[in-house]
Amino acid sequence: MASNHEEVKLFGIVGSPFVTRVDIALNLKGVQYKFVEEKWKSFSDTLIKYNPVYKKVPVLVHNEKPISESLVIIEYIDETWTPNSILPSDPYKRALARFWSKFIDDKSFSAVQKVAFTLDEKEREKHIEEMQASFQILENELTDKFFGGEEIGLVDITGAFIASWVPIIEEVIGLKLLTIEKFPKLYKWSQDFVNHQVVKEKLPNRETQVAKFKALYESLVASK
Amino acid sequence: MASNHEEVKLFGIVGSPFVTRVDIALNLKGVQYKFVEEKWKSFSDTLIKYNPVYKKVPVLVHNEKPISESLVIIEYIDETWTPNSILPSDPYKRALARFWSKFIDDKSFSAVQKVAFTLDEKEREKHIEEMQASFQILENELTDKFFGGEEIGLVDITGAFIASWVPIIEEVIGLKLLTIEKFPKLYKWSQDFVNHQVVKEKLPNRETQVAKFKALYESLVASK
Repeated sequence: MASNHEEVKLFGIVGSPFVTRVDIALNLKGVQYKFVEEKWKSFSDTLIKYNPVYKKVPVLVHNEKPISESLVIIEYIDETWTPNSILPSDPYKRALARFWSKFIDDKSFSAVQKVAFTLDEKEREKHIEEMQASFQILENELTDKFFGGEEIGLVDITGAFIASWVPIIEEVIGLKLLTIEKFPKLYKWSQDFVNHQVVKEKLPNRETQVAKFKALYESLVASK
Repeated sequence: MASNHEEVKLFGIVGSPFVTRVDIALNLKGVQYKFVEEKWKSFSDTLIKYNPVYKKVPVLVHNEKPISESLVIIEYIDETWTPNSILPSDPYKRALARFWSKFIDDKSFSAVQKVAFTLDEKEREKHIEEMQASFQILENELTDKFFGGEEIGLVDITGAFIASWVPIIEEVIGLKLLTIEKFPKLYKWSQDFVNHQVVKEKLPNRETQVAKFKALYESLVASK
């Protein structure tokens, strides 16, 4: 249990989907924390000291104790601050939440990333299929408002990039990836998720992210 | 908490390092279970019904409820059966255990697998370096008898393949990978681990595994 005298810092980069997960989890718990902005490919010595193995963000530092890897951090947050459980209490439901969270990380994340950064159209088509196959599995799994039931939980937070990143990719590249016609339940989930107060407060500014990704994408096209 | 009337089945393949993890975790807890042997590349309809997403072993079925993914299963086992904790109770120590367990899965496992199945010597040398780099990080982390302290825990169980598989690869291919000279602490750990009563009872028969891997390796060489 957390004490009253505590210092919580999150080392991150605004716009990183892994960092956003931790922002949302901390906000859901009502934890006050300091966001320490790092620079992509030029991490501070402090960050490297805290995460010498992977040298990447996010790193949560709670009373000088560092924790890395977004899903590990989220379980730590859930076990440390009591209100608004992120994982269910029943062991079987916890196992299912961990399974689907891992599924999203293993199957959807890399596919979405490849869709965003592949210029070759045929190649990209293959990645879109792979991504949509994972979306279809998630669509079939979704029976409530959120994966966590009526409130957001581990699976929703892990999938934050589907709700917030995918529309940015759609806008910049001019694709339709997560439509209401193809994935009615997952599309509605994405809307409910980004409009959830706890999430909305922590999502990076959309216009800034669109501009950032547009610049990156155009530099990719130019260097092709 | 588990009731007295329960049915526990483990769908697996003898020799699979992911299945062995679950065998060890169940044995550590003293859980009685039925091992249902599956066939590699020819899984039963029951297995596919229980794990339709990945169609692979291990699957633990507890009172008809299936759970997949070895690390998810191990956390379920730890939360369901009380004796002999697999994860520490302190949230920070739990986070560290999950971090190192994930590290072994992400960094050591694929490297060991590539060392075992790469025939090109130059290519293999690269994989050996990668594998030994991950071993060096684990060597530096090891301060007690086991990663879990005086008793085995999550990180030890995740790393079971390092202690049991790597010596088989060494024997069949004729390499020295995990030596007492290069990794004194990790080597001693591997010995303590395979000789731990709970582990010893569940490790697949060494001669059978050597023969299996030898046959597989020779068929690889022949088809080169």
